[in-house]
Amino acid sequence: MTAVGIDAIEIRTGKLELDLAETFAPAKGDDPEKYTKGLGLHASSFPDAYEDIVTMGANAAHRLMERKGLTPADIGRIDVATESAFDNSKPVSTYIAGCLEQVFDEDFHHANKGERKFACVAGTQSIDDAYNWIRAGRHRGRSALVIATDTALYARGDPGEATQGAGAVAMLISEDPDVVELSTEQGFGSADETDFLKPNQQFPSVDGKRSVQVYLARMREAVRDFESVAGTIHPDDFTLLPFHTPFPGMVRKAAALAYRHTIRDTEIEEELAEDIGRQPRPEAFDSDEAYVDAMGEYTDELVETDQYRDWYDRVVDPTLEISREVGNWYTGSVHVARASGLKHALENDMDLTGATLGVASYGSGAQAEVHAETVQSGWEDEIAALNVDEQLDNRYSISYEEYEHIHDVHNHDKDTDAEAEAFTPPEGEFVFDGWGRMGERKYRYVE
Amino acid sequence: MTAVGIDAIEIRTGKLELDLAETFAPAKGDDPEKYTKGLGLHASSFPDAYEDIVTMGANAAHRLMERKGLTPADIGRIDVATESAFDNSKPVSTYIAGCLEQVFDEDFHHANKGERKFACVAGTQSIDDAYNWIRAGRHRGRSALVIATDTALYARGDPGEATQGAGAVAMLISEDPDVVELSTEQGFGSADETDFLKPNQQFPSVDGKRSVQVYLARMREAVRDFESVAGTIHPDDFTLLPFHTPFPGMVRKAAALAYRHTIRDTEIEEELAEDIGRQPRPEAFDSDEAYVDAMGEYTDELVETDQYRDWYDRVVDPTLEISREVGNWYTGSVHVARASGLKHALENDMDLTGATLGVASYGSGAQAEVHAETVQSGWEDEIAALNVDEQLDNRYSISYEEYEHIHDVHNHDKDTDAEAEAFTPPEGEFVFDGWGRMGERKYRYVE
Repeated sequence: MTAVGIDAIEIRTGKLELDLAETFAPAKGDDPEKYTKGLGLHASSFPDAYEDIVTMGANAAHRLMERKGLTPADIGRIDVATESAFDNSKPVSTYIAGCLEQVFDEDFHHANKGERKFACVAGTQSIDDAYNWIRAGRHRGRSALVIATDTALYARGDPGEATQGAGAVAMLISEDPDVVELSTEQGFGSADETDFLKPNQQFPSVDGKRSVQVYLARMREAVRDFESVAGTIHPDDFTLLPFHTPFPGMVRKAAALAYRHTIRDTEIEEELAEDIGRQPRPEAFDSDEAYVDAMGEYTDELVETDQYRDWYDRVVDPTLEISREVGNWYTGSVHVARASGLKHALENDMDLTGATLGVASYGSGAQAEVHAETVQSGWEDEIAALNVDEQLDNRYSISYEEYEHIHDVHNHDKDTDAEAEAFTPPEGEFVFDGWGRMGERKYRYVE
Repeated sequence: MTAVGIDAIEIRTGKLELDLAETFAPAKGDDPEKYTKGLGLHASSFPDAYEDIVTMGANAAHRLMERKGLTPADIGRIDVATESAFDNSKPVSTYIAGCLEQVFDEDFHHANKGERKFACVAGTQSIDDAYNWIRAGRHRGRSALVIATDTALYARGDPGEATQGAGAVAMLISEDPDVVELSTEQGFGSADETDFLKPNQQFPSVDGKRSVQVYLARMREAVRDFESVAGTIHPDDFTLLPFHTPFPGMVRKAAALAYRHTIRDTEIEEELAEDIGRQPRPEAFDSDEAYVDAMGEYTDELVETDQYRDWYDRVVDPTLEISREVGNWYTGSVHVARASGLKHALENDMDLTGATLGVASYGSGAQAEVHAETVQSGWEDEIAALNVDEQLDNRYSISYEEYEHIHDVHNHDKDTDAEAEAFTPPEGEFVFDGWGRMGERKYRYVE
């Protein structure tokens, strides 16, 4: 069976940076460690006045196509995943194709364009659709362009305000991919939950505590479902474990549960038993409550062990490096986590070809998906081609007053025109160019 | 290769009916024939106060599952296509699964749920995704539930007001399907168009004239793309030709172009040449304008020929029977057209097993998709099980004042609670049950 997976990745960050410790915390009168230690975040990315989900997605896709030497005829499918759409009918993929057609000679008139929505998990769902399309033999030798793009803004003063972010990840899904092959096996954990939603509104209604519980519950279901088709997971199976990362602190919780689940009945549990005992088993307890309490105590001790810390530092922590500097990108976050882990491996001269990644995606509402990926021999060249460090270094760091301005610029309830004050000069990129007569957003390429 | 396609269909109409000739035309001071002849529409379906895209979709899915003896464990995927979503993050499929879990003992926690948006073409895109998922071998023997559900409302006074409609089509996509097998071959015609959109608004901005042109232009591209993979189409290839049907008058235009295109260089063109000449060829004209004018004249004569009328009455007109009584259902419309054509065949004792359908889907913004379907031997039982006639007969016919009320009830900018005046008593169905604390819509099953 021919391998199908991710052939190329591009990351495009919003061009502004809000420093949480230096700028946000003082303005809020908070201890900076609330953000840097508690959430695990140092900064958020924001779009400049002329950026939005279309420009970030189109700019990521443009660099990807140029770098891989692709023309529109090579692309049979353009899928956009977002929960920041500004139209209830016309998909973002048509706007992005329209942008790209400004700079390529050919058009995308025979590419199937689409848009998927399911909170933060839709990026992975779009990759799955593209994989299935190729496996179904409907691609005619072409690749799919999958773009996860979001402007993750919260209402001013919302507890989620510190976890904001904005950026796009473009991925090329192809036969014989250069980065990773996807597993046929998938695990799903999915339920009708009211943890985070946007009922006819741009900014989310969030039950933060419930959202953490739901993330963990759905992820547990997804892991079990994955194991039912792919066999029992051992912690050593995965060289890297990219999770959906709303903020690194969330992943710390999820990683602890994943490790605890996968060491059960293994030699690792036995080794650790000398120090912290074996994991509590439900049958040993009179009530669920007592079992849950005992499990909580075990987990607290587990995460302090050398074994856990070594595993976490190797397998999970590298996936959080970019996230710490950019905040939550919703649909793009798990794909930033994968890229972050691979980039760390490249920078540390690790040979990852043939290694297995466990990818744990999640969207509120709620659904988790777990699948495996096998690193392909072209991964080093692909990851070396990323310019994310340069983009992060070049961000314009905004003051709190500038943050207030840019939040208003991107608030759909406030009128914004193409003349809104920007903090950076656009160059070699697609920009928002004002509104058309039917209320559509217009775009142009700035040389 | 195992056949994959549509195994079952259910149609759920909104429970209210607005008679265009008897009620709408007099209130507007219009000649009823503007609607009945011009648009080809007799009535619109509307949702009662307790109905919406979730209840219509869940009620369709519920009847489908009951009728086919399915439990949640048989469903591996629930995809909803809509352009009437009321949440920018949480997908409608989670709400529908939540409804169904109220009446089934099992849950859908291991089913992949999603939502697709691309105006009216997303229903077909969701079927395509489900087909690909099965072909990719990821379905573990399970089926996909695809639900196209929309409340197609326009602003009061908008020219599109007479084409409104509301309803859902639920389809089961399976191996060895009972209704139709889908072709691997697909044709796409897709461009970044501003013909119909909903920029941060519930009701569409429409350029009606442009929308007709774009429908035809994208459909022409899709037909050519389909022919490039499936071979040249002859008008006799298809026993039925279900088109996306915003209103039957649009399909009359599209059918004429489809016939003209597919008779070119065939014996049909030769036969007709005695009466109306051969089709104009561009090389015979000095300007594009002269060619277009000549083509227009040829088409006007073509549609008056016996050959064309016979073809249209056999292949296209049967697909419009339900549409005439319900209006535009957006994502569901092409699937209503397919069901309508099959129902006509059943009622006229036609043997369709093995026959080929050409399915021509379209969404503004804009994209057309053409694919073929082969009718399977179980089609008669499946179509006989539809209760759409009973539902249409039981609709409550609203006065113009009642129409004004119900339009307000479904207007997102006006507060609506679960106590809004309804015109029918709910029975054996899911209903809207008011709003939760985070702004979510709640549902319950009424025995």
